[in-house]
Amino acid sequence: MNKKRPGGQTAELPSRPCLLSWASVVGKKESEGPLADTFDVASQDDTFGEKSWEKAESAMQKTALSTALKKANLAPGALDYLLAGDLLNQCIGSAFAARDQDVPFLGLYGACSTMAESLSLAALLLDGGFGAHTAAMTSSHFCSAERQYRTPLEYGSQRTPTAQWTVTGSGCVILGREGQGPRITHVTTGKIVDKGIKDANNMGAAMAPAAADTILAHFRDTGRKPSDYDLVITGDLGQLGHQLLAELLNQQGLQLPNLADCGTLIYDLNSQDVHCGGSGCGCSGAVLCGLLLNGMRDGRWKRILFCGTGALLSPTSTQQGESIPSVCHGVAIEQERQGA
Amino acid sequence: MNKKRPGGQTAELPSRPCLLSWASVVGKKESEGPLADTFDVASQDDTFGEKSWEKAESAMQKTALSTALKKANLAPGALDYLLAGDLLNQCIGSAFAARDQDVPFLGLYGACSTMAESLSLAALLLDGGFGAHTAAMTSSHFCSAERQYRTPLEYGSQRTPTAQWTVTGSGCVILGREGQGPRITHVTTGKIVDKGIKDANNMGAAMAPAAADTILAHFRDTGRKPSDYDLVITGDLGQLGHQLLAELLNQQGLQLPNLADCGTLIYDLNSQDVHCGGSGCGCSGAVLCGLLLNGMRDGRWKRILFCGTGALLSPTSTQQGESIPSVCHGVAIEQERQGA
Repeated sequence: MNKKRPGGQTAELPSRPCLLSWASVVGKKESEGPLADTFDVASQDDTFGEKSWEKAESAMQKTALSTALKKANLAPGALDYLLAGDLLNQCIGSAFAARDQDVPFLGLYGACSTMAESLSLAALLLDGGFGAHTAAMTSSHFCSAERQYRTPLEYGSQRTPTAQWTVTGSGCVILGREGQGPRITHVTTGKIVDKGIKDANNMGAAMAPAAADTILAHFRDTGRKPSDYDLVITGDLGQLGHQLLAELLNQQGLQLPNLADCGTLIYDLNSQDVHCGGSGCGCSGAVLCGLLLNGMRDGRWKRILFCGTGALLSPTSTQQGESIPSVCHGVAIEQERQGA
Repeated sequence: MNKKRPGGQTAELPSRPCLLSWASVVGKKESEGPLADTFDVASQDDTFGEKSWEKAESAMQKTALSTALKKANLAPGALDYLLAGDLLNQCIGSAFAARDQDVPFLGLYGACSTMAESLSLAALLLDGGFGAHTAAMTSSHFCSAERQYRTPLEYGSQRTPTAQWTVTGSGCVILGREGQGPRITHVTTGKIVDKGIKDANNMGAAMAPAAADTILAHFRDTGRKPSDYDLVITGDLGQLGHQLLAELLNQQGLQLPNLADCGTLIYDLNSQDVHCGGSGCGCSGAVLCGLLLNGMRDGRWKRILFCGTGALLSPTSTQQGESIPSVCHGVAIEQERQGA
């Protein structure tokens, strides 16, 4: 059986892999925002007891994984594959978190789309018949990202109005071929879209066209209507990127009444001094593994399209005058009907 | 059907995805080595006509992809997924190469194991029923790697005897659910292994235990014997790592008479001043997509186990005193019997 039409971007997953459990871990600023109650672990110490920001980021992933495994009542050895990535050079946040896990490991780099990318592949592997349990995981940390991508924290550089604030957070989902929980029905894998935006402080504008491209592909491939989703939510477009996305979709004749963005939800944009909102792998990771999946479990949403957005630039590509290639991966998640 | 036993690391691929075509692109030094005749494109200009080493690396990937597609007589639009990664921060070698391809893109980070990781996932997706064609690709470039991981080229730093030389090269494989060519029968996904080696100039020693772990898992999971393979070949352990691997396997009672390493084959270790041999994603990528797959096509080997080895460190993790987590992914490739 071919589960993906030639030329399309969407795979249909007949086995509907199940999200058995999930966990979110965040830092202090996130614990002071509007989603505070949705996270599993919120540390008041952004070092997480470690000696460097990079080690702190790994510690977040380890905590997210162990918390999610505990909720699913599984040992790490029960995982057939762990798929993870992050923003740090050489993805050390994930590699050092996975080092102690004794689990087959597949490292990913999808920039801030990594929660959706890891979830996509974790679901595709299960639907393909490769094992019984997989884990999808990611993280970002404001302090490790800021010094790697921008300027030393101590420098106190002023931020542009279009800038976003990298979320200190991690999300981890445990998937099963069988079990109870929300299920993944479709995976829409993004193409790289680059409309020539070169401003690394305006990533929402760079990523919005990629998000539009993938969302349009999803509706085209599946034949679904906007009303089929209670929520279509992007990862970290921020306030400006979110508006641009709505405009781009409208231009293509797609009105999504329930369009939202994790980056505008995780902080209070009026009071938390984050400019256009949250960003980073941990933004969509922690919002998925908090607000969104808890909300599905509690009956708030029946069907969502989770669209992780990523800007595939590096400081080096920016210094060399390059524009920002972006990508967005969409994952359709559906809550099982009660008693079904 | 579950194609992977719980607790094992090996997936069996009943559909045996086919390697339809492959292409290798290398630089000047590689074109002066013993494998010169096996590469599709060997440039005498390591800039590949670009203005930076990073752009040169992307150009190599683009050439590898277009060459492989041409050999398979396919347009980029025929690809259901492109899986690629490289060593550069934020994997810009791959992102900028994939930007112009109009193909669903999944970015990977497996350090120098990326050729095996991308091949693994490209095969698993096809066997899972997700599309008809996939591509697996990677690259490395001596000049972009040297300045990112070590010192500015102009500095002319002296190299330790255990050091290896990052290959300027790229490899790309086009896979099909159907067609003619060598076939992937098993994929053994590695766990992260870290025996505490901290010397970033001795990555062979860091990676050898990971290679041993995955090779032992492959034989344990499949019940195969060493004589079932004409060749078991690692990616870039180099001379020292290769010797360590043989010792580690011997200690576990596994003698592999046909054990080799891409890193010791790609250069003449006596005359090319590369110390312990070649390294980098492009090392195993270019050797797979030249010597190895050409050799299978020509009847030199019937069955090989291709084991990409990766050291998941970063300069930051080394500066913070960390040891080197390593990983190795194994892919069993089998040439179709004539007339079968």
